[in-house]
Amino acid sequence: MYKNFANRRRALQKRLAEEKLDRLLITHPADWYYLTGFTGDSGALVISREAGKSASLVTDGRFIAQAGDETSGVKIVPQAGALYPSVAKFLRAGRGRRVGFDSGQLTVAQHQELLRATGKHVAWRAASGLVASLRMRKDPAELAVMRRAAMVADEVMAAAARLLKPGVREFEVAAEIEYQMKKRGASGTAFETIVAFGGRSALPHARATGKRLRKNELVVLDLGAILAHYCSDITRTYYVGRAPSRVRGWYHAVLEAQQAAIAAVKNGATCGEVDAAARSVLAGHKLDRYFVHSTGHGLGLEVHEDPRVARGQTRVLAPGNVITIEPGVYFPGVGGIRIEDDVAVHEKRTEVLTRVSRDLTEL
Amino acid sequence: MYKNFANRRRALQKRLAEEKLDRLLITHPADWYYLTGFTGDSGALVISREAGKSASLVTDGRFIAQAGDETSGVKIVPQAGALYPSVAKFLRAGRGRRVGFDSGQLTVAQHQELLRATGKHVAWRAASGLVASLRMRKDPAELAVMRRAAMVADEVMAAAARLLKPGVREFEVAAEIEYQMKKRGASGTAFETIVAFGGRSALPHARATGKRLRKNELVVLDLGAILAHYCSDITRTYYVGRAPSRVRGWYHAVLEAQQAAIAAVKNGATCGEVDAAARSVLAGHKLDRYFVHSTGHGLGLEVHEDPRVARGQTRVLAPGNVITIEPGVYFPGVGGIRIEDDVAVHEKRTEVLTRVSRDLTEL
Repeated sequence: MYKNFANRRRALQKRLAEEKLDRLLITHPADWYYLTGFTGDSGALVISREAGKSASLVTDGRFIAQAGDETSGVKIVPQAGALYPSVAKFLRAGRGRRVGFDSGQLTVAQHQELLRATGKHVAWRAASGLVASLRMRKDPAELAVMRRAAMVADEVMAAAARLLKPGVREFEVAAEIEYQMKKRGASGTAFETIVAFGGRSALPHARATGKRLRKNELVVLDLGAILAHYCSDITRTYYVGRAPSRVRGWYHAVLEAQQAAIAAVKNGATCGEVDAAARSVLAGHKLDRYFVHSTGHGLGLEVHEDPRVARGQTRVLAPGNVITIEPGVYFPGVGGIRIEDDVAVHEKRTEVLTRVSRDLTEL
Repeated sequence: MYKNFANRRRALQKRLAEEKLDRLLITHPADWYYLTGFTGDSGALVISREAGKSASLVTDGRFIAQAGDETSGVKIVPQAGALYPSVAKFLRAGRGRRVGFDSGQLTVAQHQELLRATGKHVAWRAASGLVASLRMRKDPAELAVMRRAAMVADEVMAAAARLLKPGVREFEVAAEIEYQMKKRGASGTAFETIVAFGGRSALPHARATGKRLRKNELVVLDLGAILAHYCSDITRTYYVGRAPSRVRGWYHAVLEAQQAAIAAVKNGATCGEVDAAARSVLAGHKLDRYFVHSTGHGLGLEVHEDPRVARGQTRVLAPGNVITIEPGVYFPGVGGIRIEDDVAVHEKRTEVLTRVSRDLTEL
């Protein structure tokens, strides 16, 4: 396990050399977990190109013992006072003037504080997405965990579908989903579970409410587990009763769009091509204007990470990428349908991680 | 309900006038919920000083219907393409050159993108913490919800203590805690529930693992519910078996420190004085060096918000503030003890919102 973290730090050191950076400041918890195994939620990691002193973690008293337990080959630097002044002091005392920071993560206030406190000792360089680009290419250990996280999502989805009887409330289903995840070893939900009955299913991000399920309603369940730090994300749509032909037509159009997008996922394809595959199927059914979001997103330590699978994205898919494919259609006041799976890209094949049935289930 | 949101927007407009700002850009979900009721997690809110056009929310297709349902008196602006270019376009088309932004929330990359895309149409002004300072003073509607969130925390803590029998695993207790919250109407946990047995209780932020409870161990439970968007946060420490006198001594010292800090909470006191009250009791017991974190933090829509209750903080407490008081001591390899309650400041009194017993409970 420690070996994976050390390997990732070495890969990052190579990127620092390519970018002509001496050190990189990392302030995003998912990034520092990826590089060290530290699970605390306050601190800052500095990765240096210098061999032997590659990683230093500045953190406060709450996390010192934990950081020591969780990491190997990482120097733990106890924070004295506030975080950013401590980071600046550490950087001033160390070697390597050219220090990179992620302009997508550091706030304007943090950046100004660091500029002021490091003065001429540090030449700050914006260097965005260096860790994110490594995190996009999951290694075999990460893929193994993500398969298990997807299996938990499958099992929990199947269990939740059995609860969908008229009279049940949205938040009761959400509670059961989260309990079932925990029972299977998940540390928590990857995002707030979506349980949407009837007209509420037309809201792509509906939160569970006290609404009771009635006959002849659509149900959208969108859930994800965090297992050993990695996220899964799955959506299924059910119908309570016998679905009218209009609803069946929508359902099969969304499923066709989803399968077309999954078929378009491959090593070398662009994310925009995958998005277009879903969108053009829906256009063929004259439903594209009801597809109000993008086709998917990267998945890993965070539930939304690179790459984005959206209109016009030129990013090329590569082995180790894990993305969601989740087209949907939404009719305000009537209901919505979304079908989502998690997909891993390999050199010569695509692996669908979530596998629970996609048939239209009439309950 | 809508009236509360409108009142808060009016209070913010007064602050804009004081700060000589025409408009304020708000990019933090808890802030836009506070001002509008919108619960989506992507978008940007612009508050203008102009009467009649006070609030405009730029958001994408996933959230348009939801934003319309959830808000009143807010103009919904559909995003075209990416978020920040859409925000820039909206700002360029509107009136009022002096636009404030929160430098503690906007990233360097977002700031640069906005500067570039608004050009000479906007004079950007750093204006940090304007919404945070309003959010610190909870109104009666907020306090009523926070009392209920605290009551849920109390009930769940009492239920969880009954599970603490030798052989139970940390994550089983965590799963039950979260299930019990949901059953009581919580939308989720305010933070990852801490369940730490034995030596692991010496880690102030221990995550639940598969570890089984044994006789003669300390147990720290730190949990919080989100109820109607507001957080609670409570910690209790238990002992399984008859506590040795050394553990009893530690426990009573922490409880004494906690009660001293609660007694120091009052309208007009500084946060540093409250922190010092806890710290000096522990110093009297020669335990202050084992108290490795600050005494508490503000609580509300987020589990950590202003004010910080830490060493040297000069911020003065005022009616409507809700803070945690949570001193603790930690002995690496042995165990830890923390006792935490949520406290509201009123004009002439202090209200402790969490009330489950603080007696040393030997299970």
